Amino acid sequence: MYLHNQVIQGLRDRKRAALARAVTLVEDGSEHAQHILEEAYRLKGRSKIIGITGSPGVGKSTLVDSLIEAIRERGDSVGVIAVDPSSPFTGGAILGDRVRVRSRTTDDGVFFRSLASRGYLGGLSRNTGDVITLFDAFGFDYVLVETVGTGQSEVDIMRYAHSVLVVMAPGLGDDIQAIKAGILEIGDVFCVNKADRPDADRDVAVLEAMLGLNKDWQWRPPVVKTVASQGKGVPELLDKIDEHLGFLKQGNLLEERVSRSYLAALEANLRRQTVEHVLSKSRSDGSLDCALKQLSEGKTYPAALARQLVEKYLCSGV
Amino acid sequence: MYLHNQVIQGLRDRKRAALARAVTLVEDGSEHAQHILEEAYRLKGRSKIIGITGSPGVGKSTLVDSLIEAIRERGDSVGVIAVDPSSPFTGGAILGDRVRVRSRTTDDGVFFRSLASRGYLGGLSRNTGDVITLFDAFGFDYVLVETVGTGQSEVDIMRYAHSVLVVMAPGLGDDIQAIKAGILEIGDVFCVNKADRPDADRDVAVLEAMLGLNKDWQWRPPVVKTVASQGKGVPELLDKIDEHLGFLKQGNLLEERVSRSYLAALEANLRRQTVEHVLSKSRSDGSLDCALKQLSEGKTYPAALARQLVEKYLCSGV
Repeated sequence: MYLHNQVIQGLRDRKRAALARAVTLVEDGSEHAQHILEEAYRLKGRSKIIGITGSPGVGKSTLVDSLIEAIRERGDSVGVIAVDPSSPFTGGAILGDRVRVRSRTTDDGVFFRSLASRGYLGGLSRNTGDVITLFDAFGFDYVLVETVGTGQSEVDIMRYAHSVLVVMAPGLGDDIQAIKAGILEIGDVFCVNKADRPDADRDVAVLEAMLGLNKDWQWRPPVVKTVASQGKGVPELLDKIDEHLGFLKQGNLLEERVSRSYLAALEANLRRQTVEHVLSKSRSDGSLDCALKQLSEGKTYPAALARQLVEKYLCSGV
Repeated sequence: MYLHNQVIQGLRDRKRAALARAVTLVEDGSEHAQHILEEAYRLKGRSKIIGITGSPGVGKSTLVDSLIEAIRERGDSVGVIAVDPSSPFTGGAILGDRVRVRSRTTDDGVFFRSLASRGYLGGLSRNTGDVITLFDAFGFDYVLVETVGTGQSEVDIMRYAHSVLVVMAPGLGDDIQAIKAGILEIGDVFCVNKADRPDADRDVAVLEAMLGLNKDWQWRPPVVKTVASQGKGVPELLDKIDEHLGFLKQGNLLEERVSRSYLAALEANLRRQTVEHVLSKSRSDGSLDCALKQLSEGKTYPAALARQLVEKYLCSGV
């Protein structure tokens, strides 16, 4: 029996080891991955997929842990995907992974996995959609996708979520304004964590004011105060997330979110494959070196060169 | 006389207003941009391009300000490009911009500009290389490119730099380990800012240990302690940056970095143009909707679909 058949059977039987194996095979781009993904995209569609983002120091990990508690208290199962930066030196993500997993190995209703960034070209966005689909296919009630920061790739990853939770915290210094600004547009629910800190109410007010600038919300994102370390406000936060999912279903907007996630996954794969195609073609026939030489000699500029290469290697498809 | 000719003349005459105008035209993708870029890529090659990254709260802005001081004290000129997240609501980046510019309008040797993220698809990485080239063409001695966070796009932006400075600070909580891990591999010089805090020496030790794990450095990245708010350690930091640039020149490695930046710029443009090409083609002939429908019905998976579209719309170029 082929490895991928064993893994697929394991996924159907909701074996955690099979899920872990599947994620690794997909992350490594193994030839087994395609068979597993084919099946996963057939099985998917059961999970509520929640994207959770916010800058370092807001207490995301603690909040995720207490969200897990709240979800488990309702008797629902939850899978957690943490998209971390990692390093060839330390494999930082994996470390974080172990720590978190160890704290919950006793609970079969929770599964935690960290995804490492794989180098430059679309590294982060490349497999995330596939891994989320593996979790969905496994059939968790909730899948939490946690990312650090407000980089483009984090924003891209949020496109895979049905609901996006943006976490903030008081007293992170000047940068918080920019961070708020950067992710205001992607949040469905906002959380001001560490709400026992002095500036919490001011931050909530600023946030409400910023959200108030947009007059034509279909769904006005609520702002919830939490103290994750004590679990305060977390059940209410989970309620708001469920409310948003309910809103999406009522308005038949869930399909929109889902097809947004398909488009995101397609784009992520296209970005990688088209660029690889053009780069490898132009490498093999020497036109890439020639192109870089032209750039270094100031004979042209990147956008024009890209246009030339696109015209050369992309045909009308007719 | 065409607008772009005026701007080009202004760039040659080192008029700051012309540079500001040029950046805006390039950011907006105006039809004047291509003429300006053609000229800019001819004029470029005078500036030392320094990438500066680190998570929010490490005091990057303050450090950049004191680096500006140190550079100016040597009589050199400096252009600063801050790549910020921004928002349709607040235009946060522009705000930050004004504040910083106002504090220095009296000094002709300094020019500051914020770049806003422009939506999802490669928004950040799209124009950054071109804007850096405009600054280079203007002829600043140093161009500082500042990004927040450790997202994929921030990493991409660092590929445009000759030297990459990674800024950290003690006491940012659990996340700092992950952040260190994420950007260890891209730093040429490391800076532990807010070094008057208790945990500074421990963080320096951890960092040195992590860097020590790699045995075959051509250039072992130095770690410099700074207290940017008091300018402490900043001249030494600038010396280390210059040392690295000297190392690159000696080993004829600068060309490598420069051609790395050309490749990054080409890839950024290819990512956008190839995906746009394939998406627009497949939209217009209905195969995109069909593809998304297949995904929603679980009949295929994104990587396979992307491959189909690539095969359909990308030809051999023969």
